[in-house]
Amino acid sequence: MTISLAVAGASGYAGGELLRLLLDHPGVRDGSIEIGALTANSNAGQRLGDSHPHLIPLADRVLEETTPEILAKHDVVFLGLPHGHSGEIAAQLSEDTLVVDLGADHRLADAADWEKYYGTEHAGTWPYGLPELPGQREILANTKKIAVPGCFPTGATLALMPGVARGLFSEQITVVSVTGSSGAGKAAKVPMLHAEVHGSAKAYGVAVHRHIPEITQNLGGLTDAQLKVSFTPVLAPMARGILTTAVIPTSHSAEEIRAAYAEAYATEPFVHVLPAGQQPMTANVLGSNCVQIGVEVDATAGTAIVTSAIDNLAKGTAGGAIQSMNIALGLEETAGLPLVGLAP
Amino acid sequence: MTISLAVAGASGYAGGELLRLLLDHPGVRDGSIEIGALTANSNAGQRLGDSHPHLIPLADRVLEETTPEILAKHDVVFLGLPHGHSGEIAAQLSEDTLVVDLGADHRLADAADWEKYYGTEHAGTWPYGLPELPGQREILANTKKIAVPGCFPTGATLALMPGVARGLFSEQITVVSVTGSSGAGKAAKVPMLHAEVHGSAKAYGVAVHRHIPEITQNLGGLTDAQLKVSFTPVLAPMARGILTTAVIPTSHSAEEIRAAYAEAYATEPFVHVLPAGQQPMTANVLGSNCVQIGVEVDATAGTAIVTSAIDNLAKGTAGGAIQSMNIALGLEETAGLPLVGLAP
Amino acid sequence: MTISLAVAGASGYAGGELLRLLLDHPGVRDGSIEIGALTANSNAGQRLGDSHPHLIPLADRVLEETTPEILAKHDVVFLGLPHGHSGEIAAQLSEDTLVVDLGADHRLADAADWEKYYGTEHAGTWPYGLPELPGQREILANTKKIAVPGCFPTGATLALMPGVARGLFSEQITVVSVTGSSGAGKAAKVPMLHAEVHGSAKAYGVAVHRHIPEITQNLGGLTDAQLKVSFTPVLAPMARGILTTAVIPTSHSAEEIRAAYAEAYATEPFVHVLPAGQQPMTANVLGSNCVQIGVEVDATAGTAIVTSAIDNLAKGTAGGAIQSMNIALGLEETAGLPLVGLAP
Amino acid sequence: MTISLAVAGASGYAGGELLRLLLDHPGVRDGSIEIGALTANSNAGQRLGDSHPHLIPLADRVLEETTPEILAKHDVVFLGLPHGHSGEIAAQLSEDTLVVDLGADHRLADAADWEKYYGTEHAGTWPYGLPELPGQREILANTKKIAVPGCFPTGATLALMPGVARGLFSEQITVVSVTGSSGAGKAAKVPMLHAEVHGSAKAYGVAVHRHIPEITQNLGGLTDAQLKVSFTPVLAPMARGILTTAVIPTSHSAEEIRAAYAEAYATEPFVHVLPAGQQPMTANVLGSNCVQIGVEVDATAGTAIVTSAIDNLAKGTAGGAIQSMNIALGLEETAGLPLVGLAP
Repeated sequence: MTISLAVAGASGYAGGELLRLLLDHPGVRDGSIEIGALTANSNAGQRLGDSHPHLIPLADRVLEETTPEILAKHDVVFLGLPHGHSGEIAAQLSEDTLVVDLGADHRLADAADWEKYYGTEHAGTWPYGLPELPGQREILANTKKIAVPGCFPTGATLALMPGVARGLFSEQITVVSVTGSSGAGKAAKVPMLHAEVHGSAKAYGVAVHRHIPEITQNLGGLTDAQLKVSFTPVLAPMARGILTTAVIPTSHSAEEIRAAYAEAYATEPFVHVLPAGQQPMTANVLGSNCVQIGVEVDATAGTAIVTSAIDNLAKGTAGGAIQSMNIALGLEETAGLPLVGLAP
Repeated sequence: MTISLAVAGASGYAGGELLRLLLDHPGVRDGSIEIGALTANSNAGQRLGDSHPHLIPLADRVLEETTPEILAKHDVVFLGLPHGHSGEIAAQLSEDTLVVDLGADHRLADAADWEKYYGTEHAGTWPYGLPELPGQREILANTKKIAVPGCFPTGATLALMPGVARGLFSEQITVVSVTGSSGAGKAAKVPMLHAEVHGSAKAYGVAVHRHIPEITQNLGGLTDAQLKVSFTPVLAPMARGILTTAVIPTSHSAEEIRAAYAEAYATEPFVHVLPAGQQPMTANVLGSNCVQIGVEVDATAGTAIVTSAIDNLAKGTAGGAIQSMNIALGLEETAGLPLVGLAP
Repeated sequence: MTISLAVAGASGYAGGELLRLLLDHPGVRDGSIEIGALTANSNAGQRLGDSHPHLIPLADRVLEETTPEILAKHDVVFLGLPHGHSGEIAAQLSEDTLVVDLGADHRLADAADWEKYYGTEHAGTWPYGLPELPGQREILANTKKIAVPGCFPTGATLALMPGVARGLFSEQITVVSVTGSSGAGKAAKVPMLHAEVHGSAKAYGVAVHRHIPEITQNLGGLTDAQLKVSFTPVLAPMARGILTTAVIPTSHSAEEIRAAYAEAYATEPFVHVLPAGQQPMTANVLGSNCVQIGVEVDATAGTAIVTSAIDNLAKGTAGGAIQSMNIALGLEETAGLPLVGLAP
Repeated sequence: MTISLAVAGASGYAGGELLRLLLDHPGVRDGSIEIGALTANSNAGQRLGDSHPHLIPLADRVLEETTPEILAKHDVVFLGLPHGHSGEIAAQLSEDTLVVDLGADHRLADAADWEKYYGTEHAGTWPYGLPELPGQREILANTKKIAVPGCFPTGATLALMPGVARGLFSEQITVVSVTGSSGAGKAAKVPMLHAEVHGSAKAYGVAVHRHIPEITQNLGGLTDAQLKVSFTPVLAPMARGILTTAVIPTSHSAEEIRAAYAEAYATEPFVHVLPAGQQPMTANVLGSNCVQIGVEVDATAGTAIVTSAIDNLAKGTAGGAIQSMNIALGLEETAGLPLVGLAP
């Protein structure tokens, strides 16, 4: 039986990355998965090649309107839509459709958090698509609705999870994440012009970024401690990649913490804890679904410094989405997901 | 009377930036300051234009050997040398020579700190060239020896000074600084090749960076509290600029802290505290001696988030050096120091 | 007497660069030139600091509407407006106002060329603001209307002028110019987003670029030969800079051609012909008004290969405009124009 | 039967890219191809992960010395060595070993050309690994020695081949190729430091670049005309990619030439001729083996302007090498070679 798959928001960066990865998915290559409707809003009616000239094999596909009717004809629907919009569309799809929402609408459990950070009504909560969280694979294997994590929460949660879950860290958690420009999406805005971003760095969304409650929610679920999570994103002049630096007071040694991380991630196919003295680098995971993690301790400052590198569009969005889809469809979890980054 | 000035290490990035700024210094323009010997080690004998083809007016100057004899003939000597080397040279110059050391040798007060982080014998301690520190201008006005601050300590100290000095912050201070590649100097190393750095971010020197004790020393001098300072640099793919993010537990509001900063820096010619909602950006200060500072508070996390932007080669090295030289020579402090960055 | 100066289109890149340079102009520093109205269209009513946070000394200036009434109150008016718009505004300003048009409207002498490449009615022809052209300084010293050259024509004309004027080249001229992204201006467009331009190169405007007739006009004025000029711009991932490569069949040697260039530019304050084996680099002239030129010959191919580097916003737009203004006002031609680039 | 494969020069960029692509080669995935010895010179004895931290699945492989003895144990040997070195090693390998030389030693047919441009003794001439050349696939299917084309010759030859072969162009051919920094290899050199290359463009090897005779040789073999080929490379601040602009006098129309190109490449799996008005972009082919080609004509200048985009490390080096290896081994030509680039 062929599984039919649609991508809503196919002209955006998340949609393009999904299609890039899907084109090399064994299911697509052997025909058991079929790439069906590709939809868009303002770009509907255009060739996909106009939006994504790198997707050469799909260049002549025509983008359709994003409507529930068109999407409903598929077994799997990916939603790469602005927040607010995906909740609306999802509500009109059947319970049996596997819906993978790359937007924020269904990530948060707390409606008050949603309203505080997003300012609209909460659409509801879906199983969270981070298979590396304890017990999460089983949940994802038995769901038809998946909320793909935000890119920063993916990098930060994986950098902090073992330490928080095992009680190695204090409650005051500081995260600073350096990100590439593709995280801002493909909308035309002056501050995201090449000439503005090139050769420069700036923090943004300081103290109000929408990924703050999501990170707190992920980590809070791992411990009874009352965590205080400070998160600051910094835009750097690269197109892809998130380098997360998490700094947390600790009394444990680097060896102890690194060993706990190595153990926690020992069977994870995508998470690599580096040996002492080695540091993650976003180029190492570029275009792949991998995560590199470095663990050090500054005994003088009394802090652990854990760093992680992901590709925000791959593991941080489209790769993570496919990983969860694979689990929900009963396929091999790693199917179609690159294990090697594009460097240099 | 003409002041004669020499630059040791003129073929490096610090030396080049000094000369770029000095060429537009009013003293050099009106002839009251004369650019004398330019010295180098492996590049001695070559034209300056071979090392710095942008310094067109000085292109035909020939680099001399870095020797105390050559340098001693000048009233002002800038040392842009690897650490260890500047201490050695400085020891052979007269007490009357104004020596401005852009290297690390004379920055730290604590010999044990020096030995721990640099692994060699301590050369001694000189007045610290950060005029914005309380009382520091008077010290600099009466000295013949100046230790120019490191680039990260400049950005971090200015981001934290008013909050620490006024007791607005807790003791646990976390600093993450995103830096451009010129901070690594002009030595040929594979990890600093363009293809390696381009499109990627990585932390380095984690928990062991040599600027850690310098930041701690600067901030520790402002308070009786026992500070714990965690500092992590992250290399981003830009040539210049440091964007510092400092995160500190606090119970004060953003307004309160921002007002304290505005007051503390009210008369500073180079330090600009931004209004609420605005963030520094390294492009804004590119090539200039300015510092932009943003202050926000995340009440949920209970932290102040203070960000600063500098040009690591300008205010962070050569600009800061000229600012201190101006004070020591009794010139106008801002002479020759750009107030406007090169953007976009 | 104080000269009053207005900038229309102050929120764009050309306007911002004009103001960056003017802030360091000796006339502005000594008060003999006064920066008057700064106008904009969609940004009117906002602070200049919102558009140009690097222009710290002018941050609180409020942008006014671009109207002839406001501009007419000034002795000098710079027009940094989209083509079509500057012709319209200029027509409403007095004959006595020194109008410096950074747009294209008044550059072309041939109305048919204008209509072919711009598709609108021709606004007329003004003296061309490239002082390095033979006899041009005298014309600029006696005019009240100046058409500032396009950025590509500046780089290409200076790369080709001596060879064409002295008959050293054949008629078939090929120019390929690599440019940074600021040349596209500050309008929000998807193809100019950082993520689109980063890490990539592409040609654009191939065979139809609007600077083609301008380059042809400049070079055609130097010779009786019937030139055929092919020009192709290539967008590269940098914010500023144009590196022009001009390839022309020749039977002359590199030494001969280089000597002709050196002679032609011997007294030019901004044009630097490099010795054999050295090549221009855009970083060398970044932010400055300088031009570097390299001359080589490939005897096997029978071609001269002349390269030039300029900063598209400085010498290629705002710096060139100020240079011409200086001449028209009887000031020193080099006043306020940096001679040293910002590298690295 | 398992095919055993060795990579000499595995720590360099060409070697790393070969391994990145081979890890996803179906032969390697199904075990019919085995990655054997990985050798290096100065890095011998180190882990591959120290040189290429992105090649996570091979991180713990230890680099061996590059000796004929070690390489001789394999069925296929890739040589990613400095020119001169590969000729030496190759001479000591058996006639039956499939040797794929990514270096320059065996590309040129004319020993005088070799000596003029490389200055050493000519090692001999091997079948040239550009399957798209007329008749070349049959040659490659029956050889044990393959000279992989240079990166610039790949981009330039594919941009010019149909036009030259069909007599659509004049003899005077001008090529300007914009390249990323990885083309310079992984050797530590000051001019290739990130801070030097970032934000800047420069031409290099002007009139003397070693790829000039190779381009001339490739094109000369397609026609009886006496071609004159001028080639200039321009370094742009990106890590990968070559955007070639070829300008050639012609009397034919764009439609005519584009149709000839479309026909010539109709069955090529990797070469894509774009429709009118579309231009290649290196990001579109990043990490892939694809080539995009754009064809336009400037009737006023009387020139065709043909542009091509390749990834210099993929189709331009390691991808092209695997493509030829596939042919020589009788495998599917496209095996293991990505058809989709990594954008944005």
